Amino acid sequence: MVYVTRKANFSASHRLHNPAWSEEKNNAVFGKCNNPNGHGHNYEIEVTVGGLPPQETGMVIDLKKLADIIEAELIEKVDHKHMNLDVDFMRGCIPTAENMAMAFWKILEPKIKEGKLASIKLYESANNFVEYRGE
Amino acid sequence: MVYVTRKANFSASHRLHNPAWSEEKNNAVFGKCNNPNGHGHNYEIEVTVGGLPPQETGMVIDLKKLADIIEAELIEKVDHKHMNLDVDFMRGCIPTAENMAMAFWKILEPKIKEGKLASIKLYESANNFVEYRGE
Amino acid sequence: MVYVTRKANFSASHRLHNPAWSEEKNNAVFGKCNNPNGHGHNYEIEVTVGGLPPQETGMVIDLKKLADIIEAELIEKVDHKHMNLDVDFMRGCIPTAENMAMAFWKILEPKIKEGKLASIKLYESANNFVEYRGE
Amino acid sequence: MVYVTRKANFSASHRLHNPAWSEEKNNAVFGKCNNPNGHGHNYEIEVTVGGLPPQETGMVIDLKKLADIIEAELIEKVDHKHMNLDVDFMRGCIPTAENMAMAFWKILEPKIKEGKLASIKLYESANNFVEYRGE
Amino acid sequence: MVYVTRKANFSASHRLHNPAWSEEKNNAVFGKCNNPNGHGHNYEIEVTVGGLPPQETGMVIDLKKLADIIEAELIEKVDHKHMNLDVDFMRGCIPTAENMAMAFWKILEPKIKEGKLASIKLYESANNFVEYRGE
Amino acid sequence: MVYVTRKANFSASHRLHNPAWSEEKNNAVFGKCNNPNGHGHNYEIEVTVGGLPPQETGMVIDLKKLADIIEAELIEKVDHKHMNLDVDFMRGCIPTAENMAMAFWKILEPKIKEGKLASIKLYESANNFVEYRGE
Repeated sequence: MVYVTRKANFSASHRLHNPAWSEEKNNAVFGKCNNPNGHGHNYEIEVTVGGLPPQETGMVIDLKKLADIIEAELIEKVDHKHMNLDVDFMRGCIPTAENMAMAFWKILEPKIKEGKLASIKLYESANNFVEYRGE
Repeated sequence: MVYVTRKANFSASHRLHNPAWSEEKNNAVFGKCNNPNGHGHNYEIEVTVGGLPPQETGMVIDLKKLADIIEAELIEKVDHKHMNLDVDFMRGCIPTAENMAMAFWKILEPKIKEGKLASIKLYESANNFVEYRGE
Repeated sequence: MVYVTRKANFSASHRLHNPAWSEEKNNAVFGKCNNPNGHGHNYEIEVTVGGLPPQETGMVIDLKKLADIIEAELIEKVDHKHMNLDVDFMRGCIPTAENMAMAFWKILEPKIKEGKLASIKLYESANNFVEYRGE
Repeated sequence: MVYVTRKANFSASHRLHNPAWSEEKNNAVFGKCNNPNGHGHNYEIEVTVGGLPPQETGMVIDLKKLADIIEAELIEKVDHKHMNLDVDFMRGCIPTAENMAMAFWKILEPKIKEGKLASIKLYESANNFVEYRGE
Repeated sequence: MVYVTRKANFSASHRLHNPAWSEEKNNAVFGKCNNPNGHGHNYEIEVTVGGLPPQETGMVIDLKKLADIIEAELIEKVDHKHMNLDVDFMRGCIPTAENMAMAFWKILEPKIKEGKLASIKLYESANNFVEYRGE
Repeated sequence: MVYVTRKANFSASHRLHNPAWSEEKNNAVFGKCNNPNGHGHNYEIEVTVGGLPPQETGMVIDLKKLADIIEAELIEKVDHKHMNLDVDFMRGCIPTAENMAMAFWKILEPKIKEGKLASIKLYESANNFVEYRGE
């Protein structure tokens, strides 16, 4: 078993806000991430696929194909977008890095036919990142 | 002459849009940066101050003081904000990295009393950055 | 299960030295890390917490709270300190990165109430780092 | 159990090409990586060793020794080389990052006497890396 | 005057070799960079353009256009290529980073119509880079 | 004129302290950098040499030679050392990054025979660095 990872980047804005809560509670829980006009990040995503490289190619998955899947299925839908307002698959869901990583897994997992999706890491800033392994 | 540099970070959203133009022209010039709901970045700023370090301190400027100035005068006003909607000193100005760097210079330059502001670098993403030297 | 990670930094000095050994043996084992006056590093720590994000917040743990715990319980005790001479919880223990990571685990693990501490990574330099998972 | 990691770097060229295939198939599968004259990378390798640090040293493995093993057994054989033409242990094997990581494991695993080799990560470029854990 | 910079990456191989010299002299001067089968790097290029941002756009140069110029005029010609054997504009010239940066300047300078090319930085590895400012 | 830069790293400890001042004044000016037992950093140095690359080599200066000069003249004297206590050329001088960069210039400038030393950059931490250009 070898794990191959491909990185991609996108820039998006978001707001952490629970509409079922008062503004006081939202501020207490989400702090400045609750700013009504939103704020943004340069997100970095690492998609890891595990498998056995066949001898004739030596590759778990063609990284160009993996990059194309990430671009078409994910980056085109989120890059230069507002996660709360512009992204269909995030509707009704607070766009924390945790929820974004789990939503990305649901989108990418069925599209990967060589090897098996093993991990999605999402870096929100230089100091914060999350990982989801489908467990 | 020695140049000392202090870095700081902030996360903000923005939209590149000229209200004097049609939507067609805005899209042609600003592309996906013209998304109505905005998008965002983790900005990194490098503030460089030049001067002669006095022998009794060996420091052009106390970097803790410089960090405090950057925090109080700049980061508090832009971090987790929407540059077009939430930031007074950017009103009426398209928040490109170029315009942001020049606006930051105007704010920081008079606050720096030890040494002299020499350069502001603003990184908008891993691949794009601007520098303004007050010239 | 989602894993969230928060990074923090501190600058400290240390000396690798076993007082039960001769100077010859200390030099043979620890080399230039045995320099009597010590040397130092910019340490980077990554604290990873695993858990299920509740639907109402979407967060395994409030990263601001996690950052505050790391700052109060750890960084304040080690930043700009000499690990052998200034840090109570390292007394009697050679301050290798391995021992530091295990000591940090003991301090942080009981303070984390949302989710569960999953990993501590400690980067000593650009080329060396250790990870402890409490196993 | 603590995991210690040492990084090393080398610069090499390679060509992805299966001599059993037609040029058309090679181009379809390997794309521009099939360029006859090859291309190259700054590879970064992370070697992770797991073990229990003995109390008298506090170290899973002496990182200087680990660095020397990586240098002598690996870097000297691949740095500033063409992976297809100059490296004996890669003969008959397509030098993808996957195959290189598995070949490196075979070389390093028997040489590590303190602790046990746990992982080899090989970064081929800023956006691509692989990991092999001997499984 | 504001300076805007765009980064781009390419992977290439090269050999440092002066055909007018003996093999002994080539080895003495170029060392392992003279390996007959070549070696390679992940090159990173930073292209800096200086100018005054017009008020209606706030941009010295449209960074998307600059990225397209770099891609079409440069990256397509050198990415996944052997600098000595595959790149027309390097023929008869030893492909050191210095010579590559000056050759890149000659190609890019006349293509940049908004602002003026101010600097080309070329990173050959984590520890080596060159800068050419057209002087 | 082309500028070539070589990076190097060292780990050292230091204390910012003016012996002519009271402890109160030292604390007020240098804060936690005045900790009596010192603290430390992973320093990164960038040495830039400017010159015209001769046609027969294409190199301003042989980077291997430059690396050897930096190693022999500088790194061997400061790596894994205490800047205040172990380094002869820093005696009587507060080891701020400013003073260190100027002292490094004095050491390296006369040793560089191909090209001319143009800049020394010294990174003290992820957020702080200084540059000295001999002016």
